[in-house]
Amino acid sequence: MNILSQLDQVVGRANVVVDAHVLEPYLEERRQKFVSRAICAVLPGSTAEVASIVQICRQRRISITPQGGNTGLCGGAVADGGIVVNLKRMNKIRGVDADAYTMELEAGCILADVQSAADECDRYFPLSLGAEGSCQIGGNLSTNAGGVNVLKYGNIRDLVLGLETVLPSGEIWHGLQALRKNNTGYDLKNLFIGAEGTLGIITAATLKLFPKPHHHATSLLALKSVQDVIDLFALARTETSDFVSSFELMSRTTLESAFKHIPGCRDLFDDLYEWYVLIELGDSTAEGISPAVSQSFLEQALESGFIEDAVIAQTVQQAEEMWRLRAAVTEAQIFEGRSIKNDVSVPISCIPEFIDIASSASLEQMPGVRCFIYGHIGDGNLHFNLCQPPAMDPDIFSEKWEDLTDVINEQVSHFGGSFSAEHGIGLLKVRDMQLHKSQTELNVMRAIKSALDPDNIMNPGKILP
Amino acid sequence: MNILSQLDQVVGRANVVVDAHVLEPYLEERRQKFVSRAICAVLPGSTAEVASIVQICRQRRISITPQGGNTGLCGGAVADGGIVVNLKRMNKIRGVDADAYTMELEAGCILADVQSAADECDRYFPLSLGAEGSCQIGGNLSTNAGGVNVLKYGNIRDLVLGLETVLPSGEIWHGLQALRKNNTGYDLKNLFIGAEGTLGIITAATLKLFPKPHHHATSLLALKSVQDVIDLFALARTETSDFVSSFELMSRTTLESAFKHIPGCRDLFDDLYEWYVLIELGDSTAEGISPAVSQSFLEQALESGFIEDAVIAQTVQQAEEMWRLRAAVTEAQIFEGRSIKNDVSVPISCIPEFIDIASSASLEQMPGVRCFIYGHIGDGNLHFNLCQPPAMDPDIFSEKWEDLTDVINEQVSHFGGSFSAEHGIGLLKVRDMQLHKSQTELNVMRAIKSALDPDNIMNPGKILP
Repeated sequence: MNILSQLDQVVGRANVVVDAHVLEPYLEERRQKFVSRAICAVLPGSTAEVASIVQICRQRRISITPQGGNTGLCGGAVADGGIVVNLKRMNKIRGVDADAYTMELEAGCILADVQSAADECDRYFPLSLGAEGSCQIGGNLSTNAGGVNVLKYGNIRDLVLGLETVLPSGEIWHGLQALRKNNTGYDLKNLFIGAEGTLGIITAATLKLFPKPHHHATSLLALKSVQDVIDLFALARTETSDFVSSFELMSRTTLESAFKHIPGCRDLFDDLYEWYVLIELGDSTAEGISPAVSQSFLEQALESGFIEDAVIAQTVQQAEEMWRLRAAVTEAQIFEGRSIKNDVSVPISCIPEFIDIASSASLEQMPGVRCFIYGHIGDGNLHFNLCQPPAMDPDIFSEKWEDLTDVINEQVSHFGGSFSAEHGIGLLKVRDMQLHKSQTELNVMRAIKSALDPDNIMNPGKILP
Repeated sequence: MNILSQLDQVVGRANVVVDAHVLEPYLEERRQKFVSRAICAVLPGSTAEVASIVQICRQRRISITPQGGNTGLCGGAVADGGIVVNLKRMNKIRGVDADAYTMELEAGCILADVQSAADECDRYFPLSLGAEGSCQIGGNLSTNAGGVNVLKYGNIRDLVLGLETVLPSGEIWHGLQALRKNNTGYDLKNLFIGAEGTLGIITAATLKLFPKPHHHATSLLALKSVQDVIDLFALARTETSDFVSSFELMSRTTLESAFKHIPGCRDLFDDLYEWYVLIELGDSTAEGISPAVSQSFLEQALESGFIEDAVIAQTVQQAEEMWRLRAAVTEAQIFEGRSIKNDVSVPISCIPEFIDIASSASLEQMPGVRCFIYGHIGDGNLHFNLCQPPAMDPDIFSEKWEDLTDVINEQVSHFGGSFSAEHGIGLLKVRDMQLHKSQTELNVMRAIKSALDPDNIMNPGKILP
């Protein structure tokens, strides 16, 4: 029996996609840097079916690329000629326990649906990112997704109590506990999270939920230097008692681009400033403490001289306008020509110096290149994007991709930072693993990979050089 | 050259302990259940020395038991005839970055000193537990220590940004980053945390610090049932917006024992109740929001009928008296005769039923046995201790250790719980790993252990059956 017939028997013929047109979306790659090839895309409906698929592929030594919403930015869901296993049919929310603040669900649930399911029970699932309307929780788990609420709630790694994973052997690891404390052996959960499908296929999870913030205090602040941003953040932690959920940086350059290209975006200040911070606090108390805490903090910040000016949202609409600006900063870049998106983190105290040095080094490498700097600065995470000089041929710019990336990552390494703060490795940054990780560290990772997946069938070629 | 001479060359003769009297404290075992035997205890002064020691032992296939303050409760630091490597000389705090809220330090630092070092910089390191005056941060990391502030701040796993670890190969993994986000490959940090020294020796760490809470609101609440305790906790999460840092349960039985045996303990209520909760909120804002948030929550809790009575600490001394009660509950047990300490967690919604069923099952197994129930109930973590019937011969009670433990752990498993919430496995609970973990899970752990430590020299016999 050939593999397609075998897979048909497991999931039903309708769920083995071979038609080239139907297959297309499973092979799409957002950055158009990599070509994905697959025998078929298989759409399992249960964990048992996933296990059977893995067993078939293991016997035949056929590679498996697990896939969620296929919204990743590093080519982690690009197939190499084996099969794609897309989890979209496994999209059941198995249960919400509002009293225990937990939710059990299958890996194919779309993030926005997870947020809604929590919301309906007066609970809050804080993971929030640009692709939330189509990315799946299994992909979020496999890439340890971040987003705009990491500061208060952590990456998805911090939002998970338990996992169910189909191992490369085809066995199922039943780790779906709803426990906040469990010290019984090695931390397998955290090993599978962020492994980008190279150690198994995550099929279900138990997530932590949180009290739903009913009250918010959102403000846009104008600052004169990155050092002031860093000092402001240190002050904010103490003066709000770590109540800040978002602390997002935008440079003047990125805002200008948003004003220019994205309809409905406008400057909220009369004067021009170099740096802007969107800060938000939220709480779930009956009376709402965020506005008062925020007010008291902003008064101290003004007094300390860290901020030049502040706009405090008085209505939900005004807060939304501020968040639209933050989203527009990302969207606008496509109108500026081709760009290299660096998703880096450095220790927060080093950020001012890093931005200075990395900006000059980029300009030295390519005169006229434009640095678009924004990001989750409270986490030390910058999207340090390099946009082509306006007059340059995009293809010539693209040829310099590696050189420019190396210039940034050299500085990232110099400051003890990370060349991939939240986007992961996939195929895109495998070369950086070779360049910036020690052989010792790579060897430990390889030893773990071989121990769990000796035939190298799970998403081969990703993460490890 | 024999091994002692080789070790002398690495650390100096004064730091290779062979004299039986001097060696004694390194071989002590708090529960007096296991006998520790070692050729010597070695006291390295640097990471390079630790690496050399591991290389020597690897060549000679001599087992290494890493040791911190030797305060563990499960025999994880018991040697099996090889050498003990005690990290106490590596006790330097390498630096505190108050602006970045981080601290880099060596593994041999004593927890209380770490707390003080943070405090001196107006920062807060929240890990706090009974042994803090003598336990070392390396041991805390290796056992993923919990304690009384897990609710708000997490286990130590959640308090670590980076690690430095000497691998079983004798190589050094330099993972001492101060980054809050870093998605570059497998999560080695979380693999070493909680591995109880079976995958390497943690030699240094970068820790997260927090704003120092200057204001506190501490109260002791009286409740009529465990279900009310659980409902109260769910309410507290929302109504304080997750501002609660401690939510500690004590049963009437445990308090009675404290009143009887520990000087200075007294009942703070006029009437008798079945269950008590010590709740604390803290904050670092200039004016202090904890008292008002706590007050508003307690009013709602009284209105909802979940609490019967409440004492609100009006002074620091009154708050301390409440915390003394909580500590006394643990201390008092030694006066009640021999006891089996079960450190379990179950999903929080199941706690009332679990307590009922586990209590009756214990009494059925041994009439007259006394259940001392207290713990970090906000984390789902109960210390469900079984105390001998007053008239029973202690040795006869001890003979029933396994039977009684099995009765509890059977119910823990039934409710999807953990038989070791925060104390770890060591030697004490290896048998429970065999009984309650799936073969699949154990095999994955064994595969990782073999991949990283093929000669099985790192703390053999711990964790894995």
